[in-house]
Amino acid sequence: MPRTFVVVGHRAATGPDFTVKDLPGSGGRLDVLLRCVNSAFFLSHDLRRDTVLYLVLLGGPDAPKTLRFTGSTLQHLNPDERSTALLVQKALEMKLAGPLWREAHPGIEVSQRGLADLEDALGDKDLVLLDEDGEDVAEARLDPEDDLCLVLSDHEDLTEDERALVDGWGAREVSLGPRALHADHCITLVHGWLDRA
Amino acid sequence: MPRTFVVVGHRAATGPDFTVKDLPGSGGRLDVLLRCVNSAFFLSHDLRRDTVLYLVLLGGPDAPKTLRFTGSTLQHLNPDERSTALLVQKALEMKLAGPLWREAHPGIEVSQRGLADLEDALGDKDLVLLDEDGEDVAEARLDPEDDLCLVLSDHEDLTEDERALVDGWGAREVSLGPRALHADHCITLVHGWLDRA
Repeated sequence: MPRTFVVVGHRAATGPDFTVKDLPGSGGRLDVLLRCVNSAFFLSHDLRRDTVLYLVLLGGPDAPKTLRFTGSTLQHLNPDERSTALLVQKALEMKLAGPLWREAHPGIEVSQRGLADLEDALGDKDLVLLDEDGEDVAEARLDPEDDLCLVLSDHEDLTEDERALVDGWGAREVSLGPRALHADHCITLVHGWLDRA
Repeated sequence: MPRTFVVVGHRAATGPDFTVKDLPGSGGRLDVLLRCVNSAFFLSHDLRRDTVLYLVLLGGPDAPKTLRFTGSTLQHLNPDERSTALLVQKALEMKLAGPLWREAHPGIEVSQRGLADLEDALGDKDLVLLDEDGEDVAEARLDPEDDLCLVLSDHEDLTEDERALVDGWGAREVSLGPRALHADHCITLVHGWLDRA
């Protein structure tokens, strides 16, 4: 089954006017989200074609927007942050029509959606909220045959409203270990558990 | 005990004349090694002070050089690739005296060493060579109380000579799972296993 990840970028830029020389500052910690693209898709000399990644961008100037990366159709993706930042910048230049997805690059779509607007795409999946206080991942027995959707946050925690929303979609809470980790490292660990399951 | 990682960058630049606009090309896949710095050290809002990372640089123009990152003394490290690339560039500008370590930045040293020249630093450690054909990591029971040193390669496999060298230091071979992964993802998985051990 596909593996879906959703990462909420609370201050991430929603317009193209950031500089790739300062992704953490001008991009609103867009660097965190770019590393999630890397960890979601890259294998050694291959891409994970079974993976879909949503990046929810909630920073200025045109929030919200969501980027959808689809492994089965992704092309010309390189692992370094800068080249992926340029693809994101191109996507954020597109004229959008509300919740409709527009393809900016093969395998990269963009729409004017926030987290709540993803219910049609995510609401029926087997949702997992990664949380240090959740059930230990070894006990949780994540099953690659399930239609899993893992929800993560960037350098800031999910807001109470965001948590309530995901809880309302039936998410269970799973912990990856005793230490608080960056979102991209969490994605790598989840792939590791699912690859071995 | 400390956790030590060694990553061999077979074409990685050994001089400062690369551009941060093209780390994969001009840096000889330096981007791979910069992501290893990220995955070796970053926790959420913290650094792994117990970790040491060696980056062995074997590309032009002044090979070999080795960078040593020491978590207990590292300062001003940011998670994005570009800012770490600038620290590496500064380190590669330094005048060196053979195998002596020179500090280029708090917690970042550089010397004119290759992999064989690290025997005094690594030879007595509990060496582990990550290899898809090795013992499964769940069976290998990596112990954070051991003085572990994990040896990895960049996008190219270790050469036969490099493998023979590390085997000669008594390395055992461990596999992290069924899929071939990027070096930085392997470091994240190893930290994950050790954090949970």
